[in-house]
Amino acid sequence: MAQLSNQLLEQIVEDSLPYASDGEVRPVIPMYDDTKKDVLGVTVWTGEEYFHAGKTDLYVPMQSTAKIVTLMLALNDFGKKRVFDMVGMEPMGDFFNSIGQLERHQTEKPFNPMINAGAIATAALVKGGSVEERFERFMTFIRQITGNPDLVMSEEIYEAEKSNGARNRALAYFMQSTGAMIMPPEEALDLYFRTNAVMMCTEDFARVGHFMANEGRDPETNIRLISPEHLRTVKSIMLTSGMYNSSGQFAVEAGFPLKSGVSGAIIGAVPGRMGIGIIGPAIDAKGNSTAGGALVKSLSNELDLNMFGVIEHEL
Amino acid sequence: MAQLSNQLLEQIVEDSLPYASDGEVRPVIPMYDDTKKDVLGVTVWTGEEYFHAGKTDLYVPMQSTAKIVTLMLALNDFGKKRVFDMVGMEPMGDFFNSIGQLERHQTEKPFNPMINAGAIATAALVKGGSVEERFERFMTFIRQITGNPDLVMSEEIYEAEKSNGARNRALAYFMQSTGAMIMPPEEALDLYFRTNAVMMCTEDFARVGHFMANEGRDPETNIRLISPEHLRTVKSIMLTSGMYNSSGQFAVEAGFPLKSGVSGAIIGAVPGRMGIGIIGPAIDAKGNSTAGGALVKSLSNELDLNMFGVIEHEL
Amino acid sequence: MAQLSNQLLEQIVEDSLPYASDGEVRPVIPMYDDTKKDVLGVTVWTGEEYFHAGKTDLYVPMQSTAKIVTLMLALNDFGKKRVFDMVGMEPMGDFFNSIGQLERHQTEKPFNPMINAGAIATAALVKGGSVEERFERFMTFIRQITGNPDLVMSEEIYEAEKSNGARNRALAYFMQSTGAMIMPPEEALDLYFRTNAVMMCTEDFARVGHFMANEGRDPETNIRLISPEHLRTVKSIMLTSGMYNSSGQFAVEAGFPLKSGVSGAIIGAVPGRMGIGIIGPAIDAKGNSTAGGALVKSLSNELDLNMFGVIEHEL
Amino acid sequence: MAQLSNQLLEQIVEDSLPYASDGEVRPVIPMYDDTKKDVLGVTVWTGEEYFHAGKTDLYVPMQSTAKIVTLMLALNDFGKKRVFDMVGMEPMGDFFNSIGQLERHQTEKPFNPMINAGAIATAALVKGGSVEERFERFMTFIRQITGNPDLVMSEEIYEAEKSNGARNRALAYFMQSTGAMIMPPEEALDLYFRTNAVMMCTEDFARVGHFMANEGRDPETNIRLISPEHLRTVKSIMLTSGMYNSSGQFAVEAGFPLKSGVSGAIIGAVPGRMGIGIIGPAIDAKGNSTAGGALVKSLSNELDLNMFGVIEHEL
Repeated sequence: MAQLSNQLLEQIVEDSLPYASDGEVRPVIPMYDDTKKDVLGVTVWTGEEYFHAGKTDLYVPMQSTAKIVTLMLALNDFGKKRVFDMVGMEPMGDFFNSIGQLERHQTEKPFNPMINAGAIATAALVKGGSVEERFERFMTFIRQITGNPDLVMSEEIYEAEKSNGARNRALAYFMQSTGAMIMPPEEALDLYFRTNAVMMCTEDFARVGHFMANEGRDPETNIRLISPEHLRTVKSIMLTSGMYNSSGQFAVEAGFPLKSGVSGAIIGAVPGRMGIGIIGPAIDAKGNSTAGGALVKSLSNELDLNMFGVIEHEL
Repeated sequence: MAQLSNQLLEQIVEDSLPYASDGEVRPVIPMYDDTKKDVLGVTVWTGEEYFHAGKTDLYVPMQSTAKIVTLMLALNDFGKKRVFDMVGMEPMGDFFNSIGQLERHQTEKPFNPMINAGAIATAALVKGGSVEERFERFMTFIRQITGNPDLVMSEEIYEAEKSNGARNRALAYFMQSTGAMIMPPEEALDLYFRTNAVMMCTEDFARVGHFMANEGRDPETNIRLISPEHLRTVKSIMLTSGMYNSSGQFAVEAGFPLKSGVSGAIIGAVPGRMGIGIIGPAIDAKGNSTAGGALVKSLSNELDLNMFGVIEHEL
Repeated sequence: MAQLSNQLLEQIVEDSLPYASDGEVRPVIPMYDDTKKDVLGVTVWTGEEYFHAGKTDLYVPMQSTAKIVTLMLALNDFGKKRVFDMVGMEPMGDFFNSIGQLERHQTEKPFNPMINAGAIATAALVKGGSVEERFERFMTFIRQITGNPDLVMSEEIYEAEKSNGARNRALAYFMQSTGAMIMPPEEALDLYFRTNAVMMCTEDFARVGHFMANEGRDPETNIRLISPEHLRTVKSIMLTSGMYNSSGQFAVEAGFPLKSGVSGAIIGAVPGRMGIGIIGPAIDAKGNSTAGGALVKSLSNELDLNMFGVIEHEL
Repeated sequence: MAQLSNQLLEQIVEDSLPYASDGEVRPVIPMYDDTKKDVLGVTVWTGEEYFHAGKTDLYVPMQSTAKIVTLMLALNDFGKKRVFDMVGMEPMGDFFNSIGQLERHQTEKPFNPMINAGAIATAALVKGGSVEERFERFMTFIRQITGNPDLVMSEEIYEAEKSNGARNRALAYFMQSTGAMIMPPEEALDLYFRTNAVMMCTEDFARVGHFMANEGRDPETNIRLISPEHLRTVKSIMLTSGMYNSSGQFAVEAGFPLKSGVSGAIIGAVPGRMGIGIIGPAIDAKGNSTAGGALVKSLSNELDLNMFGVIEHEL
């Protein structure tokens, strides 16, 4: 087992960066062009020390990494029973925006909160008198758990999400037709699009991971912002469903809770040990950062982060 | 956190047994009739001590719990790359015997080794000159890891499996048609049906769990029978896919690797701590023991076995 | 072969009415309650004579029978090639509002213009500067082909369609996401909901059928309103797909082009012979009038309307 | 409307042959290689006169064209009710060998007798004490309706079908698992493979078409071999489902009952007018002869064969 250090991270970034060429940046993200393709950055936050490597001053939208924050808020607002009456906790085995899977299983609820349908249904479970108020509560929460009061939403990304939102609208209206939406679809979608557009750098992502890896305490006040049971629920679901259709592979190769977004961001939460924030904009067909995924697997091997057991380094 | 003891187990069995009435015994298992419905037994093996409660002298067929043993053998025989060239490692989100999922994804390989299609494909990756030889190797391996030289296959169960095997034949021939089978379908099926018919009691299942929870050592000789990397691979896949379509829920509510079979057997492997063997023949529509599932969740809460974090018992 | 007469029709209505008890009226149609369940009426228009039986003064919304009118308009406006670039002509084998079928086939176009998705896509192919103008053209056309200048849309039905339109919205946005919509989804949906709400009685439906059964001529002026090729295209698609998931059965048992709606309306077009208009509000799970379907089959047998051959009545 | 003549047919063959380059010959048919790709032949039999064009001395296996003969026999043997209790009459909208469609609809019966699953289920409804006896009855019937006592099965084709039959085995075993098979799967498959391997030339195919287009009489004895009702049932199903996933398109463009096979054979039955036999070995992705399909459409236009109406030739 290696010792965590900036040098080690630099080495892993160097080894992982070539995998960026296997992916593509997502064209509908306004700030993404080919100059962003060969980029990779990582921050690890142990609660005592930060470690950085690669490009760590890039701000990207949270995209699907926001799903875990929305889920934490919904669990706080409505409790486990009510939330999972509306959305399942099973991995899906289909693409993240699948609508046929909803229909095929003739169920009123989407498979889990990590797929788009499930996240839209979960967004409807964040309390507030209006979309603005619900989103303000999201922003307050994400600023608290990151300890970063400067986090903001990008209007440009939000507009792009909205104007490219046809598939997500289809999911929301389909759920309305089956009774799975407790809010007008356009309101839940609006909140969903906004959360996707919150901008973060690797350090912010690492802080979210650290918050979840530990006891869910406000880094400033040390007050618990979420119960341990809710936190472990979210982490379990991250492990089984956080990396889109490659979740099973990452459970094997990395072995700890992860959540990715199509901006190429990855949040890692190693229980009791560390939070990891990664940005690698080039993503594969399933939606995961190619270089970021390689980095996660190397880091897990080097630091023995796999919850299912260690391999022998001397072999 | 409670202390593990026979009394604790007895209490949990008593509390879990009523859930048996929510399930049904599987009629195609010859020895199963309604007298088996209200039955529940558990053995926990820590490597130092056995704990028992409920009915522990019942022998039932391994059914799908055999899938993890077949996978370990295949990994030993062909290595990780070759095995996962033939079968995936992603959770599926469909019923364990789904054939549409194979077709829909136009993939040559089944989703994972825990579903029937994947297990049949994995059976084809156990080395041997004939079905008999392959099955003999399976028996040698399962006797070694349980330390029980008396384990045998039930001819009666094997015949019942074969004569009710139409759906599994459909899966095998479908895979032959896509190139996912490297063995004549009837041979792979024959091996698969035999492994399903190996008879075990709760102690045997607990010993398999303990073998996997630790370093994969022969309990007699202490020699490693499988590499740590293979072992953690199997445990990851158990967590994401071991409990059929309820795997996500068990990842949340129990939080450690489990594998169930339609005989109502459950094997649990708590990394570094213990092996758990459960028999509760009444199963739900997804294939899991109803009373056994309740028992697993209680045990996880009482003994803080959830890998994703503990809840607060004083709350 | 029997002789067409009011008495014959009365007899067939009497024999068919009991099938109404096998169906249910669709609750979202405002005017439909249980008093409408045991209702059946039919008009046959040969071009020379009208025949009536049962309740023929009831006005019901066109619902899906409007799909054939929209398709005729779209063919007139854009021609066959352009229309069928946007929508297929294959029967589907899934329920009329299936969305999974769209996704599964990864096609940009819906199966055919008789299913909801296809009809919404077809509505986008009716020319006009606004939804109002497009709908006005629809009304002009339907008034022409029926020779009935009094046809109007029911505001109440239109509002009900809109407020129960979640599933259709899901279809429209899904198609927008794949490029199958050439109009903003809400506009195509608005036109679609309006056409569904045009009110007709059995005679009006029979006149549409007669228009299609013959040369597509304006009953007043005798001028052709649509080319013979477009007309036969629409009739072929009615035969293979006009009766939802029972189209195959009606091709066998009735054997001529039919189109049904969930209001219990059925339009029949027997090439060169007659138009048939039926209203029987109780529908089966697939969306077809149960009594109306029985009536269609009897009428086909009695009058030898089956295009695929006659049975022997003397047998 | 043109006059039917050998010259007309020659012209249509010449115009249609270039479409052969859009298709591929099916490699598992032993006699098919690239020399068969640019081949097209047609025979039309009016009951009074034969017309021929192109290559008409090629013998090819019936493949799926045998499905209509099997269906006629099953209807004769068990009657309409019993046959359609076991197999549906609805078009499917999925590929001819789809297995997911069976599963998705959780039905015990396949969609229709023209898809592989349905034809295998129908083969089980041909009476006989053994596969040999059932097949002998098939041969007797096909020799009768063609008036050709020399028809034989190709052992080579039969063996090829059997050894490439994994997908069809999957369908048969799947149906056994749902109760849709009333015969051991291997026996039904054996009969199915044999019927697929019966060898015919264009004249034989045209004779089958003529038998069906008229009253189903033995061409020698003029005795009815099948009831008019069964005959029209089969023709309806041909129209809605006979050309695989392009059945809807052929209903529009040709407009009369057709059945194709992957050998590139097409049987056409124009009610009351003629039988058509076509061989064009190059098939498209859906399984239909590309040149043969073009020929069918031209012939329909030239001779006004479309049952849904004529276009205006003077336009």
